[in-house]
Amino acid sequence: MMTTQELLARIDALAAISAMEGGLLRAYLTDEHRRANELVATWMQQAGMSTWQDQAGNQWGRYEGSEAGAKALIIGSHLDTVPNAGRYDGMLGVLLGIAAVDHFNRLGQRFPFAIEVVGFGDEEGTRFGSTLLGSRAVSGSWLQEWFAVADKQGVTMAEAFKAFGLDPAEVGKAARHADDVKAYIEVHIEQGVVLESKDLQLGTVTAIAGARRKQVVVKGRAGHAGTTPMDLRFDALVMAAHAITMIERKAKIWNLVATVGRVECLPNAVNVIPGEVRFSVDIRSQDDHERDRAWAEMEAGIRTIVGSRNGDVSISDTHAAPAVPCADWLQQSFNDALAEHGHKAFSLVSGAGHDAMAMADITDVGMLFLRSPGGISHHPAESVIEDDVRASLEVLISAIGRIAAH
Amino acid sequence: MMTTQELLARIDALAAISAMEGGLLRAYLTDEHRRANELVATWMQQAGMSTWQDQAGNQWGRYEGSEAGAKALIIGSHLDTVPNAGRYDGMLGVLLGIAAVDHFNRLGQRFPFAIEVVGFGDEEGTRFGSTLLGSRAVSGSWLQEWFAVADKQGVTMAEAFKAFGLDPAEVGKAARHADDVKAYIEVHIEQGVVLESKDLQLGTVTAIAGARRKQVVVKGRAGHAGTTPMDLRFDALVMAAHAITMIERKAKIWNLVATVGRVECLPNAVNVIPGEVRFSVDIRSQDDHERDRAWAEMEAGIRTIVGSRNGDVSISDTHAAPAVPCADWLQQSFNDALAEHGHKAFSLVSGAGHDAMAMADITDVGMLFLRSPGGISHHPAESVIEDDVRASLEVLISAIGRIAAH
Repeated sequence: MMTTQELLARIDALAAISAMEGGLLRAYLTDEHRRANELVATWMQQAGMSTWQDQAGNQWGRYEGSEAGAKALIIGSHLDTVPNAGRYDGMLGVLLGIAAVDHFNRLGQRFPFAIEVVGFGDEEGTRFGSTLLGSRAVSGSWLQEWFAVADKQGVTMAEAFKAFGLDPAEVGKAARHADDVKAYIEVHIEQGVVLESKDLQLGTVTAIAGARRKQVVVKGRAGHAGTTPMDLRFDALVMAAHAITMIERKAKIWNLVATVGRVECLPNAVNVIPGEVRFSVDIRSQDDHERDRAWAEMEAGIRTIVGSRNGDVSISDTHAAPAVPCADWLQQSFNDALAEHGHKAFSLVSGAGHDAMAMADITDVGMLFLRSPGGISHHPAESVIEDDVRASLEVLISAIGRIAAH
Repeated sequence: MMTTQELLARIDALAAISAMEGGLLRAYLTDEHRRANELVATWMQQAGMSTWQDQAGNQWGRYEGSEAGAKALIIGSHLDTVPNAGRYDGMLGVLLGIAAVDHFNRLGQRFPFAIEVVGFGDEEGTRFGSTLLGSRAVSGSWLQEWFAVADKQGVTMAEAFKAFGLDPAEVGKAARHADDVKAYIEVHIEQGVVLESKDLQLGTVTAIAGARRKQVVVKGRAGHAGTTPMDLRFDALVMAAHAITMIERKAKIWNLVATVGRVECLPNAVNVIPGEVRFSVDIRSQDDHERDRAWAEMEAGIRTIVGSRNGDVSISDTHAAPAVPCADWLQQSFNDALAEHGHKAFSLVSGAGHDAMAMADITDVGMLFLRSPGGISHHPAESVIEDDVRASLEVLISAIGRIAAH
């Protein structure tokens, strides 16, 4: 088995391919994307894989099964980054997949399925705003309208495709058929503090939480902070503050997460009673139905609070994505592999989105999380503990064996 | 007695002297200031007053008492405006003073004191930021450092004095001696909705509320809105929301006004748990001691809320002004005058600042408020009800008689 040092040295080599001085930035269809694909392809080849870049710029390697042309177990994650990124988000999952294949290749071990490793070209949406572009090409959910979207320099995605040597008309060929795929698995840093708070190295993901986002506009009446007695006020900020504390309380009761992350107060002057407050609500759960029931309670709560103070409220949807459950049999494979290596079989929900969300359109998906020190991610201080990386490779290798036994 | 129509025609004539197309703006030491002073001086002269402009640009008229050189009862308010102002704030008080004198002059009635009417050149602070410049020159609390303050065009106040024909070195001569002044009274629109909510035309002011302003910074910890469970969050906005609802609750209990008017959330992103929230608190009361006790409770409440959620809080003072009580005998004069004309003798606190605050440094002050429809002020929609103006002139005239009898 490849040493953790070797694996982390590859992480560092990948992190050196950056468009940003003194930090890491690698966006879709850029020169850095091309160089990262080339480097990853050499490692895939060293692990005994045949390699190709697909029609959406995703980098693939295939380790043939015991019979040629078998279905593929796809192990993947993404090679792109946010601006000033950490170096583990996405990349670690791709390199662990290659390291697992490298292990089987050294032993000459073949499975009833092929193992393919994919480094998706875009998951973060850094350049064109839309996320999961790479995995949506593979899952066949690419939208033609994306080609007209321009980056900040005014370059459309169609132009970027051509500059990268890709033909927009061919993108459909990147889609994989469900019949050719056995399952999709992904190893990723948690990007949260659940594992750390439990003092655990690894955990099995039960589902990628569905998210709904709302924009709430509370209207009261602006007024002079000195001349308006308390009982004649319609203070939109006080109404919003009651709503914000209620949302937190209900999120705890419903055992899901809800966040008011953005708040805007008008006119936002020291000596003026706020006349209008706008705030966002982001609510996520592994269970769409529970999430919608919780939100219905929260919305009723907001309307009661604002109504009882004679304010007006309007609420609009800004985003909705269903939860994506991980397949039971893949969860079981990870749990058994965890137990085999002396880990507690701990399950948790992914609050963040991942390529597995798109891949779930064509196949069963499973995910394994590594502990994220301090929960820090999307930041240069993002880190992993060396021994957690070693443990994740062991568990991934074992899980693949259990998937074969399934 | 001058008709209300005549008085309101004068208001309209004054409102036509504006630096702003389609709206009212008249700032200190401008051509509009000069033209307003000249127009007001002609009305003062028509009412039998001798007139002069003082060394700070305030416009004065004096209606001599039964003996020349008697102490003066000063009736005043300001002639400057905020940008895009209403036409009653300040101006109405000056014109009511002139109308009262006009009434006595028509009757040939003299008092044991002179009556002086003053139109202060600056109360709003529109041009140089500092408020009450006119009345602070008269009360002798002018600060030499103001001369170095520049307006948005880079013109210092010293330069503006000279351009207006004033000598900065002479500003001290605008100060009036306490010995020469009997009292200061001011009629003003309420700029709030207390009188309207009580269905009253007029009210006697008990005090101009003292104000303290605080800046509160609550620090929690930013985190991913999807990956951080509720029980591992340190959400600065939830802490601030609890504080904001607590401040409102305590303000009601203490029977004063407290306002969180400005709030800033960091990083203010839909999918990030707020790491830091900054908000302002403006707290006002007619009683400085009560106000400070109430604030002490609020501050303790903020510290308890934030501390119990393991956040950090820092609080700084941004403004403090003591309350200015109106003299009992002047309140009584207004109350008796109200009763004489069939009004309820209703008392209220002024939450906004007025020239009377500065004048209180040298003499007893009293104020009468007129109803403000909708509480609207500092806005083109600021208005008065014609019959309220008539009533205020009657009550002002009666109150002057009662002051003479005191």
